[in-house]
Amino acid sequence: MPERVFQGMDIIVPRPDPDPSISGRRVGEFPGNKARRSASRMRPRPLELFAMDPIINYCCACGGAIVLRVPPGDSLPRHVCAACGAIHYRNPRMVVGALAEWEGRILLCRRAIEPRLGRWTLPAGFMENGETVAQAAARETLEEANARLELHDMYTVISVPQANQVHMFYRARLLDLDFFPGEETLETALFSEHEIPWEEIAFRTVTQTLRHFFEDRSQGDFRFHAGEIPLPSPAPGDIDAAIKSP
Amino acid sequence: MPERVFQGMDIIVPRPDPDPSISGRRVGEFPGNKARRSASRMRPRPLELFAMDPIINYCCACGGAIVLRVPPGDSLPRHVCAACGAIHYRNPRMVVGALAEWEGRILLCRRAIEPRLGRWTLPAGFMENGETVAQAAARETLEEANARLELHDMYTVISVPQANQVHMFYRARLLDLDFFPGEETLETALFSEHEIPWEEIAFRTVTQTLRHFFEDRSQGDFRFHAGEIPLPSPAPGDIDAAIKSP
Repeated sequence: MPERVFQGMDIIVPRPDPDPSISGRRVGEFPGNKARRSASRMRPRPLELFAMDPIINYCCACGGAIVLRVPPGDSLPRHVCAACGAIHYRNPRMVVGALAEWEGRILLCRRAIEPRLGRWTLPAGFMENGETVAQAAARETLEEANARLELHDMYTVISVPQANQVHMFYRARLLDLDFFPGEETLETALFSEHEIPWEEIAFRTVTQTLRHFFEDRSQGDFRFHAGEIPLPSPAPGDIDAAIKSP
Repeated sequence: MPERVFQGMDIIVPRPDPDPSISGRRVGEFPGNKARRSASRMRPRPLELFAMDPIINYCCACGGAIVLRVPPGDSLPRHVCAACGAIHYRNPRMVVGALAEWEGRILLCRRAIEPRLGRWTLPAGFMENGETVAQAAARETLEEANARLELHDMYTVISVPQANQVHMFYRARLLDLDFFPGEETLETALFSEHEIPWEEIAFRTVTQTLRHFFEDRSQGDFRFHAGEIPLPSPAPGDIDAAIKSP
């Protein structure tokens, strides 16, 4: 079986099958764009298949061969086309969602897709070109929970450097109770603070956002929070290697 | 002379010259990654050359032909490889910078590159993979102004949907006065409120951020601001066309 190389986490995976709808997945805290919805729902895949970006072997403009080099004036190696000179940048993506309330309870969605299939999340997904952060939050909530919102303030912005992502959540109020699961969602439900399934939350950015919310609510003062998910500490072996290296 | 098609604003431009360092430019409020620094400085180019993304004609993974279609379960057309099925997403990028103070005056940089060559900006640029928003703000300020900072709070997050960007600025304090222009900068200087060259500011997100700052300072209360640069109103002809279309 031919192998296919993905970048991001540089995982080499066997080509799964010829169905185009399940190719081109990304590794990440959220899987993002919607292309993988239905196929994923039918055939859940291991995390390794959600590669962040396809590797760049060819120039997408002219089809020429790619070399990795530091362009003049730059400080980092980039994917540069040896034929036409086009530089193919990779930059972090935004994952945007909403913390939506109804009479003090919070709307959560149980994920129908990998990664973290079966776990609970605030509705969220990759921001699309041409929209604002607020529009992305409302759209994702509509897509994942068929829920209509009155958006309040931007509430959290949390960097996830290991996934090349920044997660952003708005506070919001549900306009009605007519929500139901979208294609990426197994189940939608409202949770009061003591009902939150903390051990089954899909992403640490969601846990952080929920904790800020309940803390702020107990203080009677909602304020904006910026933060980050720390990079994992190096394993003991890595530290030894670093100490031993010249 | 062969033509080359760029996407984003879908501008067709003649291939400028064989120098690879000036290819692959993007249209945008900020030109971003550093590859174009020195070449741009020597040979400023019209705005049209700063195309957002090279067009996707070929699959960067396998070199196959690309078709534009809505993948199963998706709602938007994507660039899909007809050969291997890889889906090539395009998402907005983050431009991150700092509003850095020294005894009440603000550090601005006069741009040495297009777009907006010769105009003043807060130091900022495209966030890179693997870093946090805070790290990006400090790095860009170091690169553009050789200025070292103590970062304070995230201060503004402003969507620029027409450029597929979100701009974010931290408040910060300069650690010393040993700043000087980086390669993308003609001049660095500190400005008090009445000295700000409002008519020569490069980007509306910078103007908004500065206005919030002076307003908040006059109130004695700095708070986080989220906002957006509104899309341009449709021209009268566009409205007529929309009304006439079925």
